[in-house]
Amino acid sequence: MSDVGVTVKKSEDFSEWYTQVIVKSGMADYAPVKGCMIFREHSYAIWEKIQQIFDEKIKATGHRNVYFPLFIPESFLKKEAEHFAGFTPEVAWVTMGGDTPLEEKLALRPTSETIMYATFAKWIRSWRDLPIKINQWCNIIRWDTKGTKLFLRTREFLWQEGHTAHATKEEADQEVMQILNEYKDVMENYLAIPVLTGKKSESDKFPGALYTTALEAIMPDGKALQMGTSHQLGQNFSKVFKIKFLDQDEKEQYVWQTSWGFSTRMIGALVMVHGDDKGLVLPPRVAPIQVAIVPIPYKDANSKEILAKAQQIYEKLQKQDIQVVLDDRAEYTPGWKFNEWELKGVPVRIEIGPRDVKQKQVTLARRDTFEKVAVKEEKVLNAVEELLEKIQKNLFNKARKFLEENITTVKTYSEFKKVLRKKGGFIRACWCSSPECEEKIKEETGATIRIVPLKKEKTFTECIYCGEKAKEVVYFARAY
Amino acid sequence: MSDVGVTVKKSEDFSEWYTQVIVKSGMADYAPVKGCMIFREHSYAIWEKIQQIFDEKIKATGHRNVYFPLFIPESFLKKEAEHFAGFTPEVAWVTMGGDTPLEEKLALRPTSETIMYATFAKWIRSWRDLPIKINQWCNIIRWDTKGTKLFLRTREFLWQEGHTAHATKEEADQEVMQILNEYKDVMENYLAIPVLTGKKSESDKFPGALYTTALEAIMPDGKALQMGTSHQLGQNFSKVFKIKFLDQDEKEQYVWQTSWGFSTRMIGALVMVHGDDKGLVLPPRVAPIQVAIVPIPYKDANSKEILAKAQQIYEKLQKQDIQVVLDDRAEYTPGWKFNEWELKGVPVRIEIGPRDVKQKQVTLARRDTFEKVAVKEEKVLNAVEELLEKIQKNLFNKARKFLEENITTVKTYSEFKKVLRKKGGFIRACWCSSPECEEKIKEETGATIRIVPLKKEKTFTECIYCGEKAKEVVYFARAY
Repeated sequence: MSDVGVTVKKSEDFSEWYTQVIVKSGMADYAPVKGCMIFREHSYAIWEKIQQIFDEKIKATGHRNVYFPLFIPESFLKKEAEHFAGFTPEVAWVTMGGDTPLEEKLALRPTSETIMYATFAKWIRSWRDLPIKINQWCNIIRWDTKGTKLFLRTREFLWQEGHTAHATKEEADQEVMQILNEYKDVMENYLAIPVLTGKKSESDKFPGALYTTALEAIMPDGKALQMGTSHQLGQNFSKVFKIKFLDQDEKEQYVWQTSWGFSTRMIGALVMVHGDDKGLVLPPRVAPIQVAIVPIPYKDANSKEILAKAQQIYEKLQKQDIQVVLDDRAEYTPGWKFNEWELKGVPVRIEIGPRDVKQKQVTLARRDTFEKVAVKEEKVLNAVEELLEKIQKNLFNKARKFLEENITTVKTYSEFKKVLRKKGGFIRACWCSSPECEEKIKEETGATIRIVPLKKEKTFTECIYCGEKAKEVVYFARAY
Repeated sequence: MSDVGVTVKKSEDFSEWYTQVIVKSGMADYAPVKGCMIFREHSYAIWEKIQQIFDEKIKATGHRNVYFPLFIPESFLKKEAEHFAGFTPEVAWVTMGGDTPLEEKLALRPTSETIMYATFAKWIRSWRDLPIKINQWCNIIRWDTKGTKLFLRTREFLWQEGHTAHATKEEADQEVMQILNEYKDVMENYLAIPVLTGKKSESDKFPGALYTTALEAIMPDGKALQMGTSHQLGQNFSKVFKIKFLDQDEKEQYVWQTSWGFSTRMIGALVMVHGDDKGLVLPPRVAPIQVAIVPIPYKDANSKEILAKAQQIYEKLQKQDIQVVLDDRAEYTPGWKFNEWELKGVPVRIEIGPRDVKQKQVTLARRDTFEKVAVKEEKVLNAVEELLEKIQKNLFNKARKFLEENITTVKTYSEFKKVLRKKGGFIRACWCSSPECEEKIKEETGATIRIVPLKKEKTFTECIYCGEKAKEVVYFARAY
């Protein structure tokens, strides 16, 4: 880490604060290639935690990891018309291998439905081959021409994409919901970010899907961020790619499919939602470093004794699988170290000074509230474990409170526009279900339907835009 | 799994056998994109095991994972002349983003030295910032124009690449050797593949390196396979990319660098070295499934009791972290299942039939030797654990014996050519150290110097090719 800490306040210049926190904490950096970023140690370690958590979940439910090629022939992308229309504008194309122009240009995967499903057709013959439940962790390329935003909008990012094939629609529906719930669990119980879940409107669903479900979080600036999606693909792709099977009655059927993904953009949400003016604040369950021990040797005190004590506590915590570092670097002062670990968002700092040694105690400092508490040496393990749980809960509760305060029910379009202008957040309103009204609202305000609740909510006015009979209650927001 | 088992013998058509084993066992498949492959569940799970084993090792020695962009501007590749010359012929180029031609064409990483080191220059200022020890797990693109061979030669493959920067040459030398030793440990003690280690000759070192160390294994057809490399880059890249630091005396210095990698081609070696006419044979430490339990219900016996017993044993093994499946599928016969688990290389099969239940025993079948042994129920856990260890050792010992038998010392060039023609394997011979002789031998025989031993061996003839004074003993082979 070079330079000093974050020089702007989160409340004053959110965008600049976001970039500074990420770059200065060692999470990420801009790459020397336009539109790309470097995932440095501190963010990649969070990604590894997320991978571990989710991977265990999907393996427990019978999914297996695979790896399909990065390259997708143009002809494959073209097979599903909606899909092609949806992705082609932002595809990067390989046209040369060495000095030789390619016969057919190759897309770098913007998503892998087409390359995978061309092969599913070969693998699936009978009901015995079903279900197929696979997933891959990989890089994804989308040639966005808008400005780069670290984690949220880059031309390359990392994600997981699950792809399944089933004998019946019901089974595929269940898969879509099961994954939606697993995603929610990861986001709320690990990242400590509460989400709204629901379906996307017809015009906003995944290109080629029957319907799309999504998870949406709210950021401190009032904008929504899509955290993940789980799609019921129906038989759209199976009909195009001829993925058929003989059922138990020897009748030929097309498979029902799902696909679902979340990406490294979640790390951007993590920064935005929990960070403060001092830098990152990481929820303990995804923090690569949960505890930093900083010995504070004074000239006139016995610094050897302090270091020995620090070492002892380090070993005790490590043995219990707590991710802990002992920061005994001689070239930095304790104050400098405090700042660094705060910038990096480490949930708990343990300070050990001469007074602590004398009184057989240590000082625990919470990253989320800055509270400090002295704890007797023999109780340090329990105290740290409890504190980590407390911090995890506190971060989630704070974020949930913010989410709840930022859902506003409106009855008129002028109210809608006013809330959007003054406060942002999710706006709960009634809608006639027509894509025209949806499009007009988007044009005039920049707000889109983020989700249509899975459990239909009772309408309470006419359509907010056209005044015709409303068919459903939906949640609008401006979004990243 | 479709179709029947492997239809050719390993000893009769090695190349066809290799492909059949891989495709029929569900390890991999050809992709519908030329030169590419699909890593299916069964090989990706092995890759995950290898990742886990090596990741733990490098993290324990202070390395951290990161992720750098796939895209490398042409100008970066060009900065180190040897490096550019070495990689450019097999680079895939992105020239279009959506409909728009790019200003500068972008290489898909054939390796990441240049993109990483352009950024190292920004991160490193002082001796306090050193060492940098990072690694990434990623996809790699090399636009090979030769025929595709699953795992061994494909245009995209997966690997890890470590990159480090140090204050001194000694430190970098140590890093190179440390990694070489870790690689050797993974290959010998997990993959059960013995390797020769040493340096590459000057003409065969990594483009841009000071020297390259490598690990070489021997395949059953007598060809060598490079399993991994660890490079001392010296200051070649740091001078080009201006990666400088102020040392403790405030003097400006260039850093010393290393890079090192192994790839999914190791999985190809695993298939070749251990497989047999029935299919894969996996060493227990990297087998995704270590034990398959197959209940054998007969009509006239109590099949419920058999299933209950199988379930009991399944749970007992699973609790001890043994990777076990209970194959209770009703739609397949026990015989069919035996074949499938053999094809997939599962080290131990547990058979439970009516006789076993009656005698309170189970039957363990070894994949490597096909031996069967009855074991009392209460001893099954110990017996399985012991058997897995035994199989691991047996596979390594067999492979080591084969390696030893396939190192032939020769004193004349005609002997050299005869051994190469009749037997292959490593040929140990004396060499004058001139690139001209090395090149001539390659032209005339197809054999290259695979390694120059780290500990110089005593020469025993003149140079095998030119008859001048020999400077060293080296190991030649034809290689994949």
